[in-house]
Amino acid sequence: MEKSARKNDDIKFVLHGQKAVFEPLVERRPALADRTEIVDVDKIVSMDEKPSRALRQGKGSSMWNALESVETGVAEAAVSCGSTGALMAISMLRLRLAEGVDRPAIAVLWPSRNPAGYNVVLDVGADVRADAADLLKFAIMGAAYARHGLDVARPRVGLLNVGTEDHKGRAELREAAALIEGAEGLGGFEYMGFVEGADIFSTRVDLIVTDGFTGNVALKTAEGTASLIRDLTGQAFRHSWFSRVGALFALTSLSRLRKRIDPRRVNGGVFLGLRGTVVKSHGSADATGVSAAIKLAFVLAKSGFAEGIAARVASGAVALQDGGGGGEAKAQ
Amino acid sequence: MEKSARKNDDIKFVLHGQKAVFEPLVERRPALADRTEIVDVDKIVSMDEKPSRALRQGKGSSMWNALESVETGVAEAAVSCGSTGALMAISMLRLRLAEGVDRPAIAVLWPSRNPAGYNVVLDVGADVRADAADLLKFAIMGAAYARHGLDVARPRVGLLNVGTEDHKGRAELREAAALIEGAEGLGGFEYMGFVEGADIFSTRVDLIVTDGFTGNVALKTAEGTASLIRDLTGQAFRHSWFSRVGALFALTSLSRLRKRIDPRRVNGGVFLGLRGTVVKSHGSADATGVSAAIKLAFVLAKSGFAEGIAARVASGAVALQDGGGGGEAKAQ
Repeated sequence: MEKSARKNDDIKFVLHGQKAVFEPLVERRPALADRTEIVDVDKIVSMDEKPSRALRQGKGSSMWNALESVETGVAEAAVSCGSTGALMAISMLRLRLAEGVDRPAIAVLWPSRNPAGYNVVLDVGADVRADAADLLKFAIMGAAYARHGLDVARPRVGLLNVGTEDHKGRAELREAAALIEGAEGLGGFEYMGFVEGADIFSTRVDLIVTDGFTGNVALKTAEGTASLIRDLTGQAFRHSWFSRVGALFALTSLSRLRKRIDPRRVNGGVFLGLRGTVVKSHGSADATGVSAAIKLAFVLAKSGFAEGIAARVASGAVALQDGGGGGEAKAQ
Repeated sequence: MEKSARKNDDIKFVLHGQKAVFEPLVERRPALADRTEIVDVDKIVSMDEKPSRALRQGKGSSMWNALESVETGVAEAAVSCGSTGALMAISMLRLRLAEGVDRPAIAVLWPSRNPAGYNVVLDVGADVRADAADLLKFAIMGAAYARHGLDVARPRVGLLNVGTEDHKGRAELREAAALIEGAEGLGGFEYMGFVEGADIFSTRVDLIVTDGFTGNVALKTAEGTASLIRDLTGQAFRHSWFSRVGALFALTSLSRLRKRIDPRRVNGGVFLGLRGTVVKSHGSADATGVSAAIKLAFVLAKSGFAEGIAARVASGAVALQDGGGGGEAKAQ
């Protein structure tokens, strides 16, 4: 918070948490003291809380109150490092789904070879399933996010599959492909066809659409790969006197690399499809990570992002009901 | 082939391909000349052939004949660098599924932190779906492969999901978890519960079971991550005079690292659940890669691996039909 406040004069905070804990911390920081309002709570939702229990018993917790403050307009966006499941469940109850959305999605910025340095991937875990109509709405919402988050005017959309040929994959993916292709104009994106796991990093697309089960596994597999390579690189550099000298010379190069793929700098899964902006920061995020999540929430709130998405999806949903969102739309 | 022949005196080859092309190549290599039989073919299955077309028109192709030579007992295992889909389709037709198997699977060795250096992951793309009973059989087949491929007496099995808690994920995964847990004794493995994408690399399990859609996306995402990091590391090292010196010092360390995670050294997806051993080598594999795939096929064929798996799965299938493979088995 302090990092964000220093970098950004326009930002204000409503901090939901135990006053006794946070008041002394805030008062000690001049950058925060005069623009942070602390709202006292007497309970928190623990990291391993089941979403269903958080829904029943979470009322009055810091998470609940933070989302309520977005609902009532006191805050323009909520940032939380708490349990993803609980945060999503309470967000859906308090903020409700945007018109035309049946399933929310969590979108992340994913390191890529594109000039922006990142691609957008969704859903990475809001729900374990998504049908063809959901995937279409993910494409529309994700494209809006790519426009705001990556500054790409007409994002190129890929649908994640096990091969790039049209006949590949599950039936609902072929159905979704037809829907997404038909909604290119409406959604302001270009549909590039099926993509594979390795294409998530590629310059072929800006946005990768998938269900929350597959997206979550892909995200955690990528994190696991990066972590294994990091460990093995460290071991390799510690291996001998000679390689230790190499490490010394390589230090700045490697730290530049680390900065580029630092998960903290893109910390923040954005909840899409709600009537309000919610950013989920990693549970183990440090100051740099939380600051990145706050910045993201600030940028999105300022741009009227949630309202823009809602309008797009609503028109997409109408088109879908009229049969105009499908493959037929292309022939019109 | 030459690499494999030099390393291994016991190996013999039946090479299915155009005689006019391969005969001069083989005759020039003393290690191959006296133990390679070339079987001439006049057609090949192209890399982008649809599996259904390969099935209808593939008869007499090198792929078809190679699998037929395993069927008739002329060869003990088949290795192919051709299209995975076509190879699987023709394998299923010629070699047929083992008793009790409804769906074959492709298993790979995946770089991990375990002492063996690798974990087994399946299915990585034989089929886009798998129900709970299929996942149970994947666990049984994968455990047999881990015993032979990684020399782990009692492999620890994890079921890939979006969280480790019992209530997470899709309904069929919770059903599969109960089946797999109930088959621990029968399958000679230990069930460790749900694992996430990052656990594929971990020491918590030796074997990760998933459906072919999720496994394929995970595998390609991991390859994409490694490739992005490799590119960015290269860029970082070329960045300045200083970092170039660092690269020089780090050369041996980095090549050691590269060797450890070199996909060529674990080249070869093994087809499980067939009445015969088939190893799919990467389409772009070089001599080191193909040699690794041949070695794998040789080791598996020698160990009577396919027959051993068939027996295990058959008894597992019987137990499943009797309701003994399910969660109830635990209470008996």
